[in-house]
Amino acid sequence: MNPTEGRTPASSRTVMTELVLPADTNNYGHIFGGRLLALADKCAGMAAMRHCNLPVVTASFDRVDFLRPVKAGMIVILTGIVNAAFRTSMEVGVTVEAEDPVTGSRVTTCRALITVVAIDHTGRPAPVPPLLPETDEERARMERAAERRRRRLETREQY
Amino acid sequence: MNPTEGRTPASSRTVMTELVLPADTNNYGHIFGGRLLALADKCAGMAAMRHCNLPVVTASFDRVDFLRPVKAGMIVILTGIVNAAFRTSMEVGVTVEAEDPVTGSRVTTCRALITVVAIDHTGRPAPVPPLLPETDEERARMERAAERRRRRLETREQY
Amino acid sequence: MNPTEGRTPASSRTVMTELVLPADTNNYGHIFGGRLLALADKCAGMAAMRHCNLPVVTASFDRVDFLRPVKAGMIVILTGIVNAAFRTSMEVGVTVEAEDPVTGSRVTTCRALITVVAIDHTGRPAPVPPLLPETDEERARMERAAERRRRRLETREQY
Amino acid sequence: MNPTEGRTPASSRTVMTELVLPADTNNYGHIFGGRLLALADKCAGMAAMRHCNLPVVTASFDRVDFLRPVKAGMIVILTGIVNAAFRTSMEVGVTVEAEDPVTGSRVTTCRALITVVAIDHTGRPAPVPPLLPETDEERARMERAAERRRRRLETREQY
Amino acid sequence: MNPTEGRTPASSRTVMTELVLPADTNNYGHIFGGRLLALADKCAGMAAMRHCNLPVVTASFDRVDFLRPVKAGMIVILTGIVNAAFRTSMEVGVTVEAEDPVTGSRVTTCRALITVVAIDHTGRPAPVPPLLPETDEERARMERAAERRRRRLETREQY
Amino acid sequence: MNPTEGRTPASSRTVMTELVLPADTNNYGHIFGGRLLALADKCAGMAAMRHCNLPVVTASFDRVDFLRPVKAGMIVILTGIVNAAFRTSMEVGVTVEAEDPVTGSRVTTCRALITVVAIDHTGRPAPVPPLLPETDEERARMERAAERRRRRLETREQY
Repeated sequence: MNPTEGRTPASSRTVMTELVLPADTNNYGHIFGGRLLALADKCAGMAAMRHCNLPVVTASFDRVDFLRPVKAGMIVILTGIVNAAFRTSMEVGVTVEAEDPVTGSRVTTCRALITVVAIDHTGRPAPVPPLLPETDEERARMERAAERRRRRLETREQY
Repeated sequence: MNPTEGRTPASSRTVMTELVLPADTNNYGHIFGGRLLALADKCAGMAAMRHCNLPVVTASFDRVDFLRPVKAGMIVILTGIVNAAFRTSMEVGVTVEAEDPVTGSRVTTCRALITVVAIDHTGRPAPVPPLLPETDEERARMERAAERRRRRLETREQY
Repeated sequence: MNPTEGRTPASSRTVMTELVLPADTNNYGHIFGGRLLALADKCAGMAAMRHCNLPVVTASFDRVDFLRPVKAGMIVILTGIVNAAFRTSMEVGVTVEAEDPVTGSRVTTCRALITVVAIDHTGRPAPVPPLLPETDEERARMERAAERRRRRLETREQY
Repeated sequence: MNPTEGRTPASSRTVMTELVLPADTNNYGHIFGGRLLALADKCAGMAAMRHCNLPVVTASFDRVDFLRPVKAGMIVILTGIVNAAFRTSMEVGVTVEAEDPVTGSRVTTCRALITVVAIDHTGRPAPVPPLLPETDEERARMERAAERRRRRLETREQY
Repeated sequence: MNPTEGRTPASSRTVMTELVLPADTNNYGHIFGGRLLALADKCAGMAAMRHCNLPVVTASFDRVDFLRPVKAGMIVILTGIVNAAFRTSMEVGVTVEAEDPVTGSRVTTCRALITVVAIDHTGRPAPVPPLLPETDEERARMERAAERRRRRLETREQY
Repeated sequence: MNPTEGRTPASSRTVMTELVLPADTNNYGHIFGGRLLALADKCAGMAAMRHCNLPVVTASFDRVDFLRPVKAGMIVILTGIVNAAFRTSMEVGVTVEAEDPVTGSRVTTCRALITVVAIDHTGRPAPVPPLLPETDEERARMERAAERRRRRLETREQY
């Protein structure tokens, strides 16, 4: 792929479907948060690689909201999409839904915004293709991601 | 859902995307076969539950072909679809593809045919909705599954 | 070992004994099928290596029957034996028994037939020693395996 | 503990020391980000429970920065401390250091800010004791956490 | 089983065969000691349950010697046998051998002596059947175990 | 570090804090002994590396006492300290405490004595710095460790 050619958000879309087993749970019978974050990290990395066709590393989790607990026996569906591409980094949004296998109903249980950086074979940041949003929603997501990045660069988090 | 209403193969479609990490590999640096089978078993179970909206158990792996090895660093995509629905059982086909994250190319690396049985809350087999194929390919898959089942019932495997 | 010398089925016999812990279970408190298949795959690989003294890869699961569920707390015993040796491949039969630790009683809960291929250091199929059955049962198992292989080569599975 | 009595940040301090093994690594031989987040989530939960002596659930990862990669063979040390206590929630800061076992030198490799909520036995948010900072640094951390929370409540993240 | 009837050492014999995969290794490419101890603990528990047909808990590891490292790709074979039965406890000996799959040669790589206690359904120690050694070696092992126990009761370890 | 310079016990102190999750439990809802031993092995290895700044391998578990069971939901704290340093080996003591997150109370649940050997880059035993105890308790622990070693060298365990 020519790195100057752009790519659509849809081309990075990555879906992981997982069944919550007892080995994934915390002591309240819900999926353990760390397990979900490990899945979200993989999901973001795969979406980013699909955008840039380069090795990637996670630079930051910019925000993760756990909206509701997910019981053992539920199906969880993670969907990762590149929201914005900058020079060498990408913001990936990961949405986690829980599907009740008996009713088929789905609810959003977690959302994450993750910044991933492309690297070359020496481990240095490498340029990524521009993102070409196709819909109004994709354009809005790209703008919000750019805005978040500006804010972050201005007010570097003091721990 | 009314169990007498049928469902399309598409409504059972279940996609799992996974990154092959060192912890998933055998001693040749390829994904360990047992790891792939564990994923395929979950994938078949989720596709079957999406068809019948009931708890399910795996009854048999009717056939699994490992077509080519998958190296660490590759993305594997499992797609499960219900091929046929019988009285209380379903045949689910799971296709595994390997995607090279740097070139984006994909090859089929494994195929599995898995029979899953719906159960009620007492653990006994429970009736499942009929399958309503929509395309010629789906009709052909349903017929081949029914044919395989006939053959199996005739010549019960002697181990 | 001289690859033209034969080996008996008994020399490939491989026994794995495992205790079913909560981390191994599905949402009904039974051993998760994928966990059992991962153990069966290892068992078949070790039995095959004991036959040919070469690296091996799993080519196919020709059939797996889950006969009854196994609860957490049970002991599972997998026994793998080479049923037949062809030019570069071997059929391995794996039997899984569940033993109740309190009564000591055992039942067969799963059976699998797995084809494993020997490879040389370049990854290409390598010839394996002939199998020398010693008992009538071993001879019958070898014949059934050869018959299954003939049938498979004739009617290549269409997925 | 009387929930109206305050507790110092030091009383919540939680240290996890871990050796990075091959099973923890990604495909570049560094600890997999998801593994680190799972440890950070546990660390935050334990620090929060030490503050409030109640069951807790993770509500959000407000920010995680991966500053540098950590190779297999390194020791990682996670230190979690409650930065601020609100009515039913606590902000926990987790710092991850990597220690080279051969030189003994340590560098900070990751920082995370995690919001954890105390729950009662019905799963509803429960009040937590106030935090009583003892040093100027602790007071500054508490103020920055309160400021971050104000900002978040004002500008609810739009994904 | 009548708890006053004795049982032979052979009736407790438990064999675990495992393939060492990359996920089992430490940073030198050898099986991680903790992984081996987890297997040895399970092996001792299963051997003890086969002796007493009761639930059991591990009371102590009286001694574990790691004699030589085991590389990834090797087969490890753990064999557990009850050495001696006391009133409510049993000493189990676990021997670990490494088998080179290419040469078939085996060496002992680890030995462990583990004390396991039988419990009733309230969790209290429960009487176990006497051990009936059949060979001179079994009688010698039983005496050495009894002697070790006497020494331990005399000189309670001061940590 | 100059290997002729001594180091204090305190400089090797290694603390691991872990939350007991369902995936860590045995069939009675308590932490599985093998899981605890794997943690203790890592803890001893890290304490030893902090003493000698060299790669290490575990040579033996000289004694492990499981004093009381630990339920899921508890926090376990492992503390490893070098008790004595010999020419190329070190005895590390690991104490395991269980902390009830709701009451904050702690009890000792397990103690282990582990011998770890330093190795150079060829895998051969390498000299370690002397231990410089600072308190009476540390001196007493060093003497007890030396005494245990003398006894072991005299009466090599016969399995």
